[in-house]
Order: sequence, then C-alpha cells, then structure tokens
Amino acid sequence: MHSFPARPSIAILGAGALGGYYGARLAQSGLPVHFLLRSDYPIVKRQGLVIKSIDGDFALPPNAARFYDTPLEMPAVDLVIVTLKTTENHQFPSLIPPLLHDNTAILTLQNGLGNEDDLARLFGAGRILGGMAFTCINRLSPGVIHHQDHGQIKLGEFASPSNSSRARAISDLFISARVACSVLECLAVGRWDKLIWNIPFNGLSALLDTTTDRLISTAHGLGLVNALMEEVIAIAAAQDIHFPTDLPAQKIAHTRTMGPYLTSMHLDRRHRRPMEIDAILGRPLAVACSCNVPAPHLHFLHNALNLLNNVAAT
Amino acid sequence: MHSFPARPSIAILGAGALGGYYGARLAQSGLPVHFLLRSDYPIVKRQGLVIKSIDGDFALPPNAARFYDTPLEMPAVDLVIVTLKTTENHQFPSLIPPLLHDNTAILTLQNGLGNEDDLARLFGAGRILGGMAFTCINRLSPGVIHHQDHGQIKLGEFASPSNSSRARAISDLFISARVACSVLECLAVGRWDKLIWNIPFNGLSALLDTTTDRLISTAHGLGLVNALMEEVIAIAAAQDIHFPTDLPAQKIAHTRTMGPYLTSMHLDRRHRRPMEIDAILGRPLAVACSCNVPAPHLHFLHNALNLLNNVAAT
Repeated sequence: MHSFPARPSIAILGAGALGGYYGARLAQSGLPVHFLLRSDYPIVKRQGLVIKSIDGDFALPPNAARFYDTPLEMPAVDLVIVTLKTTENHQFPSLIPPLLHDNTAILTLQNGLGNEDDLARLFGAGRILGGMAFTCINRLSPGVIHHQDHGQIKLGEFASPSNSSRARAISDLFISARVACSVLECLAVGRWDKLIWNIPFNGLSALLDTTTDRLISTAHGLGLVNALMEEVIAIAAAQDIHFPTDLPAQKIAHTRTMGPYLTSMHLDRRHRRPMEIDAILGRPLAVACSCNVPAPHLHFLHNALNLLNNVAAT
Repeated sequence: MHSFPARPSIAILGAGALGGYYGARLAQSGLPVHFLLRSDYPIVKRQGLVIKSIDGDFALPPNAARFYDTPLEMPAVDLVIVTLKTTENHQFPSLIPPLLHDNTAILTLQNGLGNEDDLARLFGAGRILGGMAFTCINRLSPGVIHHQDHGQIKLGEFASPSNSSRARAISDLFISARVACSVLECLAVGRWDKLIWNIPFNGLSALLDTTTDRLISTAHGLGLVNALMEEVIAIAAAQDIHFPTDLPAQKIAHTRTMGPYLTSMHLDRRHRRPMEIDAILGRPLAVACSCNVPAPHLHFLHNALNLLNNVAAT
C-alpha cells in the first residue's frame, strides 16, 4: 500500500451536518478541504460555515476552504470522506470518479451496513475505509451547524487488517483536528455493534414518532428493543461476530443517560425526508435471510417503515 | 333452559354508534328498548335518536324508547345487549346486575376475544351469547348515527350448542327489525374468523395511521398482513379451530372491495381515544403464549400499539 501523505488533500462528499462539521474541523486544523454541497451551496460559498460546538464555536470563512456544487470542478484528492445520506448511494458512480487519483483513499462515515461494499464494488476494496461517527449534530440553517454532543469517530480498513498504517494516519488527522478518533481492530465488529443500537432505536423511534427515552420507559418498549437487539446479535453471530450477553442491557443503560434523544431516522420521518431504511434495516435483514437466521421483529419493523415511507409519500 | 319470550324487553348497554343503531332498529320494530347512555344522555333524552342509514333513514322520538344515564333506574330485562367499548369491561359489575332477572340473557356484540368469558365469570355461562357485528357505523354528533354500510350480525351461545332455540329467537328479533342476522354453528369459530381480519387491519392501520386499502397496496404491507393472518390461524389451530389455507387471500381480496376504509382502532388513535388493544390483540396473544404458538408479528404489533397508547397519553 502506498504510504498515506502526512498532509493529505481532502474532499467531503455530502457536506450536510456531519460532513460540514468534520470537514470544518479538518480545514481548521490546516488541511486543504474541498466541500461538495448541493442546496446550501450558494449561501456557504458566500458566507462559509458557522459551527456552534460543545467543543468550542468557530467559523470557517469562505476563503479558508473550497466549496463546490459539482464534482467536475473538484481536484483529485488523497482522501474522500463520504457523508452522503445512504439513500443517495446510487450517485456514487457520478460523484466520486472525478475525485480519485491512483492512491485516493475513500472513508465512508455513513449509517448502516453495506456502504463499504457499494464503494468497493465500484472503486476497488483497497481504497475503502469505513467509520462510525458517534455524535449529535444538526444543521440549523444553510451553513450553520450545531454540534450538540459527543463526536467520536471509530474507523478501520474495509479489507483486513482493519488497523493499517493508513487507518492510523487518518485517525491522527482527526485527532489533530480536535475530533476524538480511534482505529478499530475489526471494522465489521464496529458496524454490527452500532447496528445493535441503531436498528431498534432509529427504527422504533421513527415508526412510533417518539424519543429514545420513551421507548425504554415501558415494559412494552423494552420488550421490543430487547427482541430486536437479540435478533441483530444472532445475525452477527452467524457472521462469526460475537458480543457479550449483557450488551443489550449495557446499551439500554447508556441510552437512559442520553435523555429525550431524537434519532436521525425519527428526524427524517418528522421532516418527511427519505429514511435510511435500507442501510440500517434492509441490509442486515438480507444478511439474516441469507444465513437463515430468524428475525421476525426486524422483518416487521422493516416492512412497517417501508409502508410508512410509502404512505407518507402518497 | 327457560324458553325465551316472543316479545322480550331489551337493554342496550353502551348506546354509542353500534348500540344506538341496533337498539333503534329493535325499538322501531315494536320492542320495549331501554338505552343506557353516558355523555350523550341529556341530548338524546330530549331529542331521541336520528339514524341515517343505507337501509333507510328513521328517527326514534324520545317517547318511543326509554333513555337512562344510570342502570339503577333501569328495569330488569329479558335481554341485555352489550355494546360497551371493551376498554370499559371493568364496569360490568356495577352496570349489569340491576338489569338481570333469573332468566335474562346477555348478548355481547363487542370486539375481540374474551368478552363472553368476562361476562360468564360474573353472571354465569348459561346467560351468555356472543355476536359479531359486520358493519360500518359512526356517531356523527350526540344522538345522530350514520349507518354507512353492511350491518349483518352473526351470533351464538357461549356454552354449546351455539345454535340454541334462544339464539335462533334472538336472531329472529334482529331479522324482524330489518337487521340481517344468522346463528353460528360455533361461536368460537366466528370470533377467530373475525380476529383473522381485525388483528392485522385494526392493528396496522392504527399503528401506521393509514386506511386498509393502503395497507394492501404494497408488498411490504401485504407481507405484514399475511404474516399476522398466518399467526392468528396457527393460534386458532392450536384451539382445534381450522380454517382453509386460502382464507388470507380471500380476506385480502374482500378488503380490496372496501376501498379506503378506516378501522375502529384507527379512528380511536386519530381521536386519541383508548384503543381496544387488549380485546383485539392482547387476549389472542395470551392464548398463543399459553399454547406455545410462536406469534412474533402479533407480539411486535401488541407491544408497539401499547407503546403508542402510552406515548400518546403522556
């Protein structure tokens, strides 16, 4: 593997709340960052980004980074960070090729399962890294991002070993940009670990239009959350990925500390935006089917959310 | 069994839309009918009932029946027809005893499972009959009832045989009152047959806030409806009640003819009234548990609706 440059050029693909925040941190640390935006482009091009952050507010003036509304005008970079919504993954073939040179690494920080596979199929597994962002970030208005809490990233190579020198170098970039970051021993373990939380809490909060604290405030809600977590753990086990038996209890206890949290899928439902059903539920369900692991609660939730999406869209 | 009188006195317990309509038909046919009302009592006492019906509009003037707001002023009658919402079954011990003489029959036309059992425990199985009303009736305003479609009743004895001379006599009362009615060979078969429709369509329409036609307009919705129907059929089979294998397809085809139908549970959710979760889902689920029949979709739906009820209530 080509050694990763100490001061890489970076493209942020999908500069919404998450991409805007992490990109702005990286740009603030002195790296050349190129942001691809869509609807917010005219305002951000003129005003830059404003970050209200629990770790300190800051602004990224228009001349401190480069903003684009098409990848055709962007340079090839050393690192592409993908923060597109997974419902837009079909745009990879048009958006990403202009950003690649022979040694460009691609890091997806998207939700759910299968994003690394999508990228690997198109651009080769050797380029691909995946990461999970544990954070609470919202876009308040065009170019204005509110980083409310947390912010840690856990990342790793898609092809083993997960903790390459490149993965460590990228992790160091984030750390230098004041973003807590660590390298995973195994990316797949990290993905499934996050799914064990995301499937019940994103799915049920969107289905029932309620915050996470309410989901775990009754025996009925705990019954659903636990049943879903057990199913996801069983699907992971069929991939030879094993978790401690008290993990659901641990995750539920942690969720209690989060208060009335609104998940991303819940916010998508509320704002009538497409929900990331396929990445967060559909692909894990497909794995369950291919391994003959029974997952009736996941099956119900997946169908019900799709039906809700369909009903809301008509 | 004491022979049932040819011209029985009747009490309607819970004169909402359903009880108001059937009671008014029976009164119109010349029988002495006593209506117990709650919130609508002052207006109905003064103005009587107005029925707008697909089978012909009519009015029941205040002097053509007796209206009450407490059972303590009501006489003992030959037939009590229970049309209370099942969420009010805890009121049976205070509401029903004043209406009973030694040979009073009690017919429940309530939704779901277990209403006959509740009544039998309190008043003896020999008195109890059950029936299903296949109809679409709404209360437009106090004392004004809209009978939109259908109206058939199927009834039978709680204790076998289901088709006693008393059951046939009560069926004849309805027929004489221009209400289509038939006597069931087996009441339990009728209850489970109706549950096979009510569980998926009431439950999912309430959960997803959508009409029945939309539930069966996508593969996701059909997947859920079919999975729930199969589970209910399996629970019934464990009670030695067997249905043809094409029953789900038949019921779905029939539902397509109903257009954009709003179920009672869906209306309850929309109007933030208590939903009949226990009678329609909880009791069948308890039967599944006691017989070790797996019913994960029913389990999910039951938990989710209870959670929705809880979230809406807070």
